[in-house]
Amino acid sequence: MSQTLDLAIELIRRPSVTPDDAGCMDLIAAKLEPFGFKTEWLNFDDTRNIWSRRGRSGPLLVFLGHTDVVPAGPLEDWLSPPFEPEIRDGQLYGRGAADMKSGIAAMTTALTRFVSRYPDHKGSIALLLTSDEEGAATNGVVKVVETLQERDEKIDWCLIGEPSSFATLGDVIRIGRRGSLSGVLRVFGVQGHVAYPDKAENPIHRFAPVLSELTHEVWDQGNEYFPPTSFQISNIQAGTGAENVIPGRLEVMFNFRFSTALTEDRIKQRVHAILDKHGLRYELNWRLSGAPFLTTKPELIDAVQRALEIVLKRRARMDTGGGTSDGRFIAPTGAQVVELGPINGSIHKVNEHVSIEDIDKLSAVYEQILVNLLAS
Amino acid sequence: MSQTLDLAIELIRRPSVTPDDAGCMDLIAAKLEPFGFKTEWLNFDDTRNIWSRRGRSGPLLVFLGHTDVVPAGPLEDWLSPPFEPEIRDGQLYGRGAADMKSGIAAMTTALTRFVSRYPDHKGSIALLLTSDEEGAATNGVVKVVETLQERDEKIDWCLIGEPSSFATLGDVIRIGRRGSLSGVLRVFGVQGHVAYPDKAENPIHRFAPVLSELTHEVWDQGNEYFPPTSFQISNIQAGTGAENVIPGRLEVMFNFRFSTALTEDRIKQRVHAILDKHGLRYELNWRLSGAPFLTTKPELIDAVQRALEIVLKRRARMDTGGGTSDGRFIAPTGAQVVELGPINGSIHKVNEHVSIEDIDKLSAVYEQILVNLLAS
Repeated sequence: MSQTLDLAIELIRRPSVTPDDAGCMDLIAAKLEPFGFKTEWLNFDDTRNIWSRRGRSGPLLVFLGHTDVVPAGPLEDWLSPPFEPEIRDGQLYGRGAADMKSGIAAMTTALTRFVSRYPDHKGSIALLLTSDEEGAATNGVVKVVETLQERDEKIDWCLIGEPSSFATLGDVIRIGRRGSLSGVLRVFGVQGHVAYPDKAENPIHRFAPVLSELTHEVWDQGNEYFPPTSFQISNIQAGTGAENVIPGRLEVMFNFRFSTALTEDRIKQRVHAILDKHGLRYELNWRLSGAPFLTTKPELIDAVQRALEIVLKRRARMDTGGGTSDGRFIAPTGAQVVELGPINGSIHKVNEHVSIEDIDKLSAVYEQILVNLLAS
Repeated sequence: MSQTLDLAIELIRRPSVTPDDAGCMDLIAAKLEPFGFKTEWLNFDDTRNIWSRRGRSGPLLVFLGHTDVVPAGPLEDWLSPPFEPEIRDGQLYGRGAADMKSGIAAMTTALTRFVSRYPDHKGSIALLLTSDEEGAATNGVVKVVETLQERDEKIDWCLIGEPSSFATLGDVIRIGRRGSLSGVLRVFGVQGHVAYPDKAENPIHRFAPVLSELTHEVWDQGNEYFPPTSFQISNIQAGTGAENVIPGRLEVMFNFRFSTALTEDRIKQRVHAILDKHGLRYELNWRLSGAPFLTTKPELIDAVQRALEIVLKRRARMDTGGGTSDGRFIAPTGAQVVELGPINGSIHKVNEHVSIEDIDKLSAVYEQILVNLLAS
């Protein structure tokens, strides 16, 4: 059994549901330390983070991952228990197999092999792990980045092991992610009896033309790497259940997934303009989960594509799909960010799995990326 | 103290919150029986109804009322306890003072005085009381009407003592009411993640153009006695509270208050046409609370107007305002229906009251109506 597969199995066996690391980081730190990595624990509240760095000079290449996993879901639907890894038909099954314990294992072994081959590599390499990526993500990478910035520790390149592959390992890499901006809107009316609508002001009716306009608006056309910005209302609520009462208030929750063709401020301006145009009385609270980012500088992308060519004889399609990732915290520092990891078809589902062949291939690709960027 | 005021006080003292009659009907039946009224109890489930009739031939004039009252609301806001009637500044205070225990008292004394004056009056007179007007109204007048119809007992004229007056006693009479038709609409979509709107179908967004069309539709222009039909959404609900989930379903409750310019069927057709035009997948359950009615034959209206002229030196404006009343159950039998009662400004509120002067005037008007229609 390969060292990478062995490590992936050891990691899956630890039930590290967010924010519990369940000992995964200790295991990995212990693997890296003999190779000259210096591990710092940067824990915040209930979240564990490690920053394991080798070398002092720039440029700095960071491998980024998370040890936490989403809950297992209905246990009776798993063919083997989620935290008892099992190999069947060439696939390794277990919660976190694809998202992203095999990625972390592949990164760890790639780092140790690379350092063995190139003990005097250029620049620095680091592994950053968090136990709060699948949760609120408030005490994970965002806090580590703050710490690094306080001491002027600058990341040049960041490779994230998130499962980016679609049908075949390495067919897709992510070079950015959309931004996510949410709003909670309260529309005020005047409560009354349905028999006397003239004495009331129905906030649902007042919202009707606004809803129509918001849902028909073309927010942008996207661009080369981003699909058009999407607007979705996730919740709408008015009324007390009584059928003869016109409600006094309507509450709406919505979310934008937006491209680099738009900014947070521009979206806010345009939404307020629509609300104001229709004379709504309202209150609107915004929350930015992450700004969009896009890596346009070529070094890291090229290193990844050349590694895929050398190891897997393919080049990846570059996209910006999916939800948010910890890349949103790294990109604003100016780092180039690329995500490359296993096939993502089974993530967050029951019977999550990864091909055991892909685990070793992925580790080889990661090693080749290190070679491309930092071999001395 | 007048007999009518005395009776109104006795009635208010009985806390007859729907469907509890609290002994009101026994009191009234006991007043009528010495005058030749034959009282039948037509009780259904938790609801008491009395049908007190004098005479066997036609035409039949019915005085209709309800002994039940709405709950008192916050006791601390009452200046005197709601079920301890108190006279202050010429006003009788208490729950039910205006809606409609003074009306019932006025009807009862009008009946006994009239019968004393005209023991051989024409036709028949009856008093119909229910204890389920303010509630579901399922075991009240609707059931009594079924009983009467089963035995071919036909009502020609029905005077309802509901508080119709606006600023001065007798300034407004109701000669009809709007219909009330409710719908519960479920719009079906496909649940999904807000980051992947292409894989979901947002029922809120699908509903947007329908909401716009429903709220902008001019349903009719009303007619001489009815305001235009109104459409109001009382409740709207979709989403689980999670901000990143596109809901799979939207639920909307709405209500039409409609005039005789429209029918239940026509409204349903038009709503379904709008829903179908936009290709919604939906389920829609309708409930008719009451069809609209309008009294157009002149005899009862004329008798009421002449009585107002004789007793109060005024003629009433005729309207069809307000919510629903038990008239909706009487009118479909072909009876002429008119509502005349005290000033309604304080009904269903704390410190409900009625002018003690109006109580006696109202009784005199009721007596004059009896004279106009049935004096021998």
